[in-house]
Amino acid sequence: MPLLIQNARLVTATSDQPGDLYAEGDKITTLAAPGKLDPADLPKSTTVIDAAGKLLMPGFIDPHVHIHLPFMGTFAKDDHPTASRAALVGGTTTYLEMVCPSRDEQPLEAYELWRDKAATGVCDYGFHIGVTRFDDDVEQQLRTLVADHGQRSFKVFLAYKGAFGVTDDELYNVCKLAAELGVIVTAHCENAELVAANQAALLAAGKVGPEWHEPSRPVSVETEGVHHFCTFLEMTGATGYIVHTSCRDAVEIAMDFRARGVNVAVETVIPYLTLDDTYAQRNASTGHDAFEGAKYVMSPPIRGVEHQHYLWHALAAGHVHTLGTDHAPFDFATQKHIGCPDASKAVDAQFNPLGEPSDFTRIPNGIPSIEHRADLLYQGVADGRITLQQFVAQVSTNAADLFGLHTKGHLAPGYDADLVLYDPDAPKTISAQTHHMATDYSGFEGVTHPGHATHVFLRGRAVVEDGKLVDELSPGQAAPRG
Amino acid sequence: MPLLIQNARLVTATSDQPGDLYAEGDKITTLAAPGKLDPADLPKSTTVIDAAGKLLMPGFIDPHVHIHLPFMGTFAKDDHPTASRAALVGGTTTYLEMVCPSRDEQPLEAYELWRDKAATGVCDYGFHIGVTRFDDDVEQQLRTLVADHGQRSFKVFLAYKGAFGVTDDELYNVCKLAAELGVIVTAHCENAELVAANQAALLAAGKVGPEWHEPSRPVSVETEGVHHFCTFLEMTGATGYIVHTSCRDAVEIAMDFRARGVNVAVETVIPYLTLDDTYAQRNASTGHDAFEGAKYVMSPPIRGVEHQHYLWHALAAGHVHTLGTDHAPFDFATQKHIGCPDASKAVDAQFNPLGEPSDFTRIPNGIPSIEHRADLLYQGVADGRITLQQFVAQVSTNAADLFGLHTKGHLAPGYDADLVLYDPDAPKTISAQTHHMATDYSGFEGVTHPGHATHVFLRGRAVVEDGKLVDELSPGQAAPRG
Amino acid sequence: MPLLIQNARLVTATSDQPGDLYAEGDKITTLAAPGKLDPADLPKSTTVIDAAGKLLMPGFIDPHVHIHLPFMGTFAKDDHPTASRAALVGGTTTYLEMVCPSRDEQPLEAYELWRDKAATGVCDYGFHIGVTRFDDDVEQQLRTLVADHGQRSFKVFLAYKGAFGVTDDELYNVCKLAAELGVIVTAHCENAELVAANQAALLAAGKVGPEWHEPSRPVSVETEGVHHFCTFLEMTGATGYIVHTSCRDAVEIAMDFRARGVNVAVETVIPYLTLDDTYAQRNASTGHDAFEGAKYVMSPPIRGVEHQHYLWHALAAGHVHTLGTDHAPFDFATQKHIGCPDASKAVDAQFNPLGEPSDFTRIPNGIPSIEHRADLLYQGVADGRITLQQFVAQVSTNAADLFGLHTKGHLAPGYDADLVLYDPDAPKTISAQTHHMATDYSGFEGVTHPGHATHVFLRGRAVVEDGKLVDELSPGQAAPRG
Amino acid sequence: MPLLIQNARLVTATSDQPGDLYAEGDKITTLAAPGKLDPADLPKSTTVIDAAGKLLMPGFIDPHVHIHLPFMGTFAKDDHPTASRAALVGGTTTYLEMVCPSRDEQPLEAYELWRDKAATGVCDYGFHIGVTRFDDDVEQQLRTLVADHGQRSFKVFLAYKGAFGVTDDELYNVCKLAAELGVIVTAHCENAELVAANQAALLAAGKVGPEWHEPSRPVSVETEGVHHFCTFLEMTGATGYIVHTSCRDAVEIAMDFRARGVNVAVETVIPYLTLDDTYAQRNASTGHDAFEGAKYVMSPPIRGVEHQHYLWHALAAGHVHTLGTDHAPFDFATQKHIGCPDASKAVDAQFNPLGEPSDFTRIPNGIPSIEHRADLLYQGVADGRITLQQFVAQVSTNAADLFGLHTKGHLAPGYDADLVLYDPDAPKTISAQTHHMATDYSGFEGVTHPGHATHVFLRGRAVVEDGKLVDELSPGQAAPRG
Repeated sequence: MPLLIQNARLVTATSDQPGDLYAEGDKITTLAAPGKLDPADLPKSTTVIDAAGKLLMPGFIDPHVHIHLPFMGTFAKDDHPTASRAALVGGTTTYLEMVCPSRDEQPLEAYELWRDKAATGVCDYGFHIGVTRFDDDVEQQLRTLVADHGQRSFKVFLAYKGAFGVTDDELYNVCKLAAELGVIVTAHCENAELVAANQAALLAAGKVGPEWHEPSRPVSVETEGVHHFCTFLEMTGATGYIVHTSCRDAVEIAMDFRARGVNVAVETVIPYLTLDDTYAQRNASTGHDAFEGAKYVMSPPIRGVEHQHYLWHALAAGHVHTLGTDHAPFDFATQKHIGCPDASKAVDAQFNPLGEPSDFTRIPNGIPSIEHRADLLYQGVADGRITLQQFVAQVSTNAADLFGLHTKGHLAPGYDADLVLYDPDAPKTISAQTHHMATDYSGFEGVTHPGHATHVFLRGRAVVEDGKLVDELSPGQAAPRG
Repeated sequence: MPLLIQNARLVTATSDQPGDLYAEGDKITTLAAPGKLDPADLPKSTTVIDAAGKLLMPGFIDPHVHIHLPFMGTFAKDDHPTASRAALVGGTTTYLEMVCPSRDEQPLEAYELWRDKAATGVCDYGFHIGVTRFDDDVEQQLRTLVADHGQRSFKVFLAYKGAFGVTDDELYNVCKLAAELGVIVTAHCENAELVAANQAALLAAGKVGPEWHEPSRPVSVETEGVHHFCTFLEMTGATGYIVHTSCRDAVEIAMDFRARGVNVAVETVIPYLTLDDTYAQRNASTGHDAFEGAKYVMSPPIRGVEHQHYLWHALAAGHVHTLGTDHAPFDFATQKHIGCPDASKAVDAQFNPLGEPSDFTRIPNGIPSIEHRADLLYQGVADGRITLQQFVAQVSTNAADLFGLHTKGHLAPGYDADLVLYDPDAPKTISAQTHHMATDYSGFEGVTHPGHATHVFLRGRAVVEDGKLVDELSPGQAAPRG
Repeated sequence: MPLLIQNARLVTATSDQPGDLYAEGDKITTLAAPGKLDPADLPKSTTVIDAAGKLLMPGFIDPHVHIHLPFMGTFAKDDHPTASRAALVGGTTTYLEMVCPSRDEQPLEAYELWRDKAATGVCDYGFHIGVTRFDDDVEQQLRTLVADHGQRSFKVFLAYKGAFGVTDDELYNVCKLAAELGVIVTAHCENAELVAANQAALLAAGKVGPEWHEPSRPVSVETEGVHHFCTFLEMTGATGYIVHTSCRDAVEIAMDFRARGVNVAVETVIPYLTLDDTYAQRNASTGHDAFEGAKYVMSPPIRGVEHQHYLWHALAAGHVHTLGTDHAPFDFATQKHIGCPDASKAVDAQFNPLGEPSDFTRIPNGIPSIEHRADLLYQGVADGRITLQQFVAQVSTNAADLFGLHTKGHLAPGYDADLVLYDPDAPKTISAQTHHMATDYSGFEGVTHPGHATHVFLRGRAVVEDGKLVDELSPGQAAPRG
Repeated sequence: MPLLIQNARLVTATSDQPGDLYAEGDKITTLAAPGKLDPADLPKSTTVIDAAGKLLMPGFIDPHVHIHLPFMGTFAKDDHPTASRAALVGGTTTYLEMVCPSRDEQPLEAYELWRDKAATGVCDYGFHIGVTRFDDDVEQQLRTLVADHGQRSFKVFLAYKGAFGVTDDELYNVCKLAAELGVIVTAHCENAELVAANQAALLAAGKVGPEWHEPSRPVSVETEGVHHFCTFLEMTGATGYIVHTSCRDAVEIAMDFRARGVNVAVETVIPYLTLDDTYAQRNASTGHDAFEGAKYVMSPPIRGVEHQHYLWHALAAGHVHTLGTDHAPFDFATQKHIGCPDASKAVDAQFNPLGEPSDFTRIPNGIPSIEHRADLLYQGVADGRITLQQFVAQVSTNAADLFGLHTKGHLAPGYDADLVLYDPDAPKTISAQTHHMATDYSGFEGVTHPGHATHVFLRGRAVVEDGKLVDELSPGQAAPRG
């Protein structure tokens, strides 16, 4: 059904002008100066929307989510139907999910499993192909995934020793293959051995609560991972992407490598811009439940507030390129409690059948945030920390460009009509009571953001109207890559 | 006259899609997917251009030129009629000129003088208002220039002691005023005192040839200037812009300040990306005229080749934001020779009436390059050093955004129809024999660039067709700022 | 009178061995393995001291004190008789005082004035010749001071605009002269203009209390000064020394220049290692007098506690070379109150005859600490932050070597018998009630340090015995330089 | 036999004074001001030496040598009798050798083997215990080596994958054990995987000559190793030491960690200060044998000359702490040629039984330099690049202090009478014809150094007189550690 949006501010990663937008089918057909598109000249079936006072932006893209996620003995709470609806409400029309096979699974089979699950959602989607083992067989499957399935990004974990982590030999070969195939390598950069050793030392010292998660993975563990990964990029000529960068030191290392000509981009995720390490330290003495901090356990951990300030500067400076979520949703009551040291509250689970006292290393990692990423980042626009153009770039356009989503991320003729009409002066307050994610808590409970998406379109179809999901939602599609 | 460009690749600072562009009057009216604009629906008078195989980009913007330039006892060779024609041929439809009053001139009078001269050219134009003195009277004039004349950028010189240079007190007050008025401060960052002392020491040691120009203004003199300026930005909250950055160390300092939240952007100029310090060292022993090096004398000087490599990396990394020229054209035979140590060849001039042996400190600074900036940068696209999107950003869009040229620099409805149709596979070779600038030499003589602008439009009017200036050119206009 | 110290640990900047020391006249004559010097072989008049359990170290050297100090409308409280006694009790047998003429005074006359006053004390002494103006006449006097009076160090102020501060031109010429004469240039590195502007802005905003002193001179003002000064050293080839370095950023800049081959050393002073910015923020709300913070006002200001931690690391890393005091003692009741905003408490003074409300810019700068420097640094040895060898180097030997005090700072035959016997396990508590300085307060009131000097010898004569000054003290001497 | 050295300049790591030194037995007994030790008061048997015009310094210590070295299919050419004699002639009275067991050998057995071989030399000696595997059994042996055999330093290799290299898990545990035992961890920092991959890529491209050795182990491979190792030190609290640091980037990383409080010291070795990468590139086109470059193959490789300059600055700045040799002597004709690509010249060896064309990866690594380390460093004193005090610290004292050689490295009573009388104005020229090492070439052939050791004493006994080894040399001893 044709769509005409009139009187909008057309806001892109570089420009901001009044104008009208017309879409036929699933593509943007025409952009025109205000009033130059006469509805009378358009098909009668055209939906006409008056966007006065609102920002019209390309649909948001979340470059880093987990939805189907078998992890730490349990499964992430969301499935694609729930997660994708939450995404749409927040203006996110496309997400890139991590395919995370275990070391003994086949990448191709894993891809098919993840792909089929993603097709049950209502967002467009793509993948980063987790490479958790590298040998001739895996190499062949990766080549197939690129050649025959259009995949354009790999994912490696330097962390999670024995689970997803790769050896230096494997890392080198993944990077070299990626360079050959023109595929980007995304990486979780924490030194696995140091994390394991720190965890063991803390547990041995009786330090078992969620407040010890950050000390088990300090800044220098992440920085070491970033230095290591960037060196491998430099040696192989591959293009890289550092996911969920949490701290100043890591960004600085990546910037040094960029200045030497290494092609590496940096992602941060919304919790690092909004929360700080005191959240995981919350406990009864401050009126919080002693295990409240578990809600804020993710890896890398949320750092001291000076890193939060730095990351905003880095977004403004162009030293951080994209904003993701690392959405990995686990319930507080039934899943985060797997790692609860209080045996009376710890959750029985397959790996803890004896009900032994548990500890922070068993808390499923992640903070649900797929729904509120853009709204929370927009606070930075309202506060003058980043420009509106940077907002669009970080929340949409840069991810499209880095990951070859060549139909997404732009307001220009020929691109998908993935559109967000954003009212910058329409505050909402976040609550687990009202959010669309499946989890029983929000890490941002009670936070009020200044604006929200009133209308969202996915390939020309309205999916959100007046801030609410429409009743009839069609399945999402795999976004073409190139 | 209405204009329709069909079958182009619409290339912007972030996107690249096939499409058609329609302009009515002086503005871009419509962008449409290929074939969606039927010429039959348009006015009969519409000029239709088939852009198949070419890149359609926003008109290029040179953020840093000198045309009316009384300097070092002479005047720059170009006037606006010559310089603006050269600019148009190279795709540059707008330039920003430095208004450079001496310390005893009035800013308002200077602005009017420069403005009236600029109106004689055929490019659109704007200014950076040189602040070479700061007192209550100057402050009042600057306020008037902003409030009544729409000016949005100041320029300060840390170099050129006694001529254009400002004191720390003046620098602070300029920055503070700029912060209050929302005006950007551009700065030439070299420590004046150190330059003067180095010059004196070199001359005393008999080091008088053009090859000593670089050693008189070494990297650390520029770096000190950048550190100094950035600190003043930090203290005042002003937004800054470092013109003609020549070296790694200076960029790194600026990046450090950006990472601390200081709003400073970095410009480099085309000679630094193409030449190196061996050019100014050319002399008879290598088959060159002993004074050949004078052609390559500008300030800051052209550095060792490792800085050239670094600057390309910095463009790719996003650590350098714009590309200018610092176009300051002086003839080799009649002007550069003012600084020739060989008394028999030195040019009589008002300041050297006795025909005494001269030296490098008297060589008028500058390398004519307004015509070839974009063509030479495009070599970097061809070589894979920067992307096509970065090219557009650096050669056009970023300057528009930084300097508030809100009608320029974008391919979107409502913006000025300043357009460049660029053929990426149509090499040309640079020569003083054929260039449009008034100077008797080119610093890039014999260099072949891979592509060139076949058609250029300024506010909807064709100014270049098939690589040649059209016969009838209208006067340029002052580009609105905001 | 000959002196034999037996059974000591001979502790130097690099070694630590048991041994005996014998001094004849004012020099160390012999060091011997334990028991190898038989008292029976020595003159009958030899004083024999058993140093069992104690550290024998070279007399401490304070490279940065002010005693005769006309400053901010008043005079520092100590004179040489009081300050030098305080120094001796703390193990400091030599200090280097800043000669600080105003811009209209003659260096030679100033030197003679300061020299004559220093001769009234009981410590050995030397000077840094403040250069607060540079012209031909001053240059001649400086040459005389070096050639005829044996002076080996200059001092420049980048801060204190209009009082002591030098212009860039003067700075260059001082450095160049110093390089020619082989004299070290010490520098107070804060940008004068920025301090003045910040002060004006704070006062205009009604921010008048001592807690605003630090914000008026933030880290970046000091860092800018250090970058500026180091660049001038690099350009002139002079050797430099940065006095009272307060923060991480400044040390890092200096280290970068050292790594490029610039010969610059870094001093910190004891308040920065012991206090932090919360001291100057003390006020009634925390049970302190609203003006209590004035006790801790010095320039550069005492920084946030992260800088204190960094400076200890920098001492351990060898990135900071010496520890001084910047001793500049002013009474709290009668002098610091010159800057008291509460008009009812502000002290009448020549510059405030009308009893107008005052502000932090008028608080005489300084924290009395000449007595406790080494004792407070020794806490770092006790805590394992620095080694005993580093302690000796920082508190004595490095200053001797940097400033050409060629008879001081070492335990070796031929050096002056300036000796400290230090009991590392004999705590004392600091109090204004008991200290030997003339001021009515101590910035370290109530601090207990783990050890103290039980015996101190100056050129072979006992000046402190059992922790107390001896009754008969001879005048100090100018320490030879070379 | 008692020893009296008169009229010397006593030069230490911090001081420089005229004086006399007396040694009884193997220890320094007394240091005295000139003339204060009357020979008439000393035993008749005392040897009296007039040291007028010479520098008396503590015996030099080489912290990094290989002598017994089974490596790359062959054995280093020197044995302890030859190497130790060469060392003594160069003033080196103590060396620390790497015990390098293969992964399947027992540390304790290896130690005993290396120890027994070292006892056949005439220098004093100590060891770094190579840890090339870590498990419970190895841990037990390491504890025994520390507790029962007085060993105080471990050595780990991040390079030499599959031979000496350790895993991250092993590295962590070595560091943790070292921290517990108070033992220093020395490390060869190059990423093994990247070296292997680079080698394979170069060989595959037919790049087989010695000039490709450096490109196979570029700066970033070493820098990655240093960053990795320093992070493990930070996490474990261990004290570390980076051996043979070749480049600016690696030193800078280490300095950053020091500034954060990590206790890590940096060694460079003499080839990096004297040679550059053009040596390994020598070939027939420059009049050299095509395989001449093999003489200069060591790991990390010798870098571009800018790194050489930097390292001298770093020595002067105190950013590099010790100078070793990494002495690993292989004959050019019979051993380096194992890696000769010219099959007609390649040496048959056990691993190349078929006489196949060889390549640079098989060239035994190392440059013989145990004899000339101090003489070549002294050139830096003569050139004013480092001070005489820094020379002593770098060539002797710092190594003694870092490695707990508590009887060595100082001129003070109670220390071993290991002494060097150095004539600073007595040039010698290096040649394989005359050197004392067993190799058939010198990497420094034809280099003239300005001074040399005329007399050397080891524990009070003369071992070198008038620049020549004495006839009767006693066996060296294991130097006590503590």
